[in-house]
Amino acid sequence: MYISTASHYIPVTTVFNEYYTRLVGLSDEWIFKRSGIRSRAKANTDENTNTMAIEAVQAAIDRLSYPITDVDLIVGATYTPYDTVGTLAHAVQRFFDIAKARVISISSACSSFLNAVEIVEGYFATNKSKRALVVSSEHNTAYSDDMDAQSGHLWGDGAGAIFISKEKTSDDDIKILDLNTTGLGHIGKGTEGVCLRPNEGGLKMPFGKDVFVNASKYMISEVKNILKKNHLTLDKINHLIPHQANSRIIAQVAEGLELRNGELIMNIEDTGNTGCASTMIGLSQNWERFKKDELIVITVFGGGYSSGAMLLRK
Amino acid sequence: MYISTASHYIPVTTVFNEYYTRLVGLSDEWIFKRSGIRSRAKANTDENTNTMAIEAVQAAIDRLSYPITDVDLIVGATYTPYDTVGTLAHAVQRFFDIAKARVISISSACSSFLNAVEIVEGYFATNKSKRALVVSSEHNTAYSDDMDAQSGHLWGDGAGAIFISKEKTSDDDIKILDLNTTGLGHIGKGTEGVCLRPNEGGLKMPFGKDVFVNASKYMISEVKNILKKNHLTLDKINHLIPHQANSRIIAQVAEGLELRNGELIMNIEDTGNTGCASTMIGLSQNWERFKKDELIVITVFGGGYSSGAMLLRK
Repeated sequence: MYISTASHYIPVTTVFNEYYTRLVGLSDEWIFKRSGIRSRAKANTDENTNTMAIEAVQAAIDRLSYPITDVDLIVGATYTPYDTVGTLAHAVQRFFDIAKARVISISSACSSFLNAVEIVEGYFATNKSKRALVVSSEHNTAYSDDMDAQSGHLWGDGAGAIFISKEKTSDDDIKILDLNTTGLGHIGKGTEGVCLRPNEGGLKMPFGKDVFVNASKYMISEVKNILKKNHLTLDKINHLIPHQANSRIIAQVAEGLELRNGELIMNIEDTGNTGCASTMIGLSQNWERFKKDELIVITVFGGGYSSGAMLLRK
Repeated sequence: MYISTASHYIPVTTVFNEYYTRLVGLSDEWIFKRSGIRSRAKANTDENTNTMAIEAVQAAIDRLSYPITDVDLIVGATYTPYDTVGTLAHAVQRFFDIAKARVISISSACSSFLNAVEIVEGYFATNKSKRALVVSSEHNTAYSDDMDAQSGHLWGDGAGAIFISKEKTSDDDIKILDLNTTGLGHIGKGTEGVCLRPNEGGLKMPFGKDVFVNASKYMISEVKNILKKNHLTLDKINHLIPHQANSRIIAQVAEGLELRNGELIMNIEDTGNTGCASTMIGLSQNWERFKKDELIVITVFGGGYSSGAMLLRK
């Protein structure tokens, strides 16, 4: 499997920490120290999960080495749906008139990106797909509460798209060497750690500590396991893109994986937690930075819980 | 692939058409004539998508020929989520402590069941799973509006579970001979035909006529295509389980497929439209009815749009 290109979309409206200082009394320094966030993007009133997904895909069109209508599988990923029936994947199919695609939207919260790629892997194995589009979009601000001093300031809006082909499409492709996902509903606070209940107050994080501990633990173990399985050692990682939930979790992960300087890719300072789009945005923002034969590892942890890792080679 | 067992859960509270007569003036006869529905189930206030999913799985435990902890993949399906982060699949993993399962929840609205099975097919192909659980649950009444005279009376609550193994587990298994899904976001009213926007009024069906026409058309063509691909003719179908959205759509499908008497499996009269659980509930309710070597065809259509068909042999 090869990633042909990655793209993203971040809304133009920026919300700085000072907004939350005025609203709930949290200072810029307090928020930054505990989360690594200085600002996050907020979708405009005429934007939603589906429009942002379309924008992210649109951003890739010019770089794509084949017509988008060649796509035969669209996997959408979000836990902040605009419409659970007319999903982001269906909206992308409709907007770009991708007539021959199978279409599905999924959620395993912030880890959905890797679950989506694993679904693609399955469709490639059955030969039901050869060219897939994974598109994620999170409209966190549609469900979060700015007045929630516990977690209201952590979330940002954004979307990512990656095009995956069974066969190599160009020398610029990134090869997917391996990937894994793990269901962790039975671990710790599991289904209660983070929740988004549309009829019960939206997006909340009642057990931040439990999320912190398990996110750090499982993002580390996912990376160690996938490296071991592929007979690689930690020092072979050129770039690590962990899920961007919290800079302190990321610091734990970096320490646990004995990262030296420079491997860590982060965007949380300017984006907040963009959910399952976060690592896709990170991949897209740094696409030009990856050099031939470099190893890139993506590791994720999601509410619910779930975790996963993906090993890539440029 | 083999279905080891199927089970379901329907809440005990029954809502008869007379409720809507009092509320919005629609008579029992009017509703029945246009939809085939006499009553539907409504979840109690302490129930939700996740609890119903657990109930459906629980109903299968005694019949399952292997420990439920052998399950290594849980695919949840719903467009009426209780929690988009702690999803129904995660809730099932947690309740039954299914520690080694990969976990994902999906939506392609009323056609999600077949998308879920297609995802399982992919995991079997990559050898990442051997024993999967597909669990659907729809809490339509959490999102529908009883005062909506257009579609408020059409929806019911319910859940279904099926256990799928790569290898045969018992002589009672039903073999999955083939399945297909189709993304139809680009067709007709597509993403607008039916919608569930949690922040914009919930579940609605603004374009019922367009849904009717395309549901009839694509449920027929999905069946014809899968039979043709497997060198079978329409007269070989012993049982047809179409998605239970509307008895008039089902009548169109039966006519288009030249069904004689007795092949058609329906439950809409007593359940209403239970979304992606409807054909799973139909499969479960009629499990004992299927005789050795009989052919069963499931055909679905979902808002968004999507369609699919699955060919089974007892």
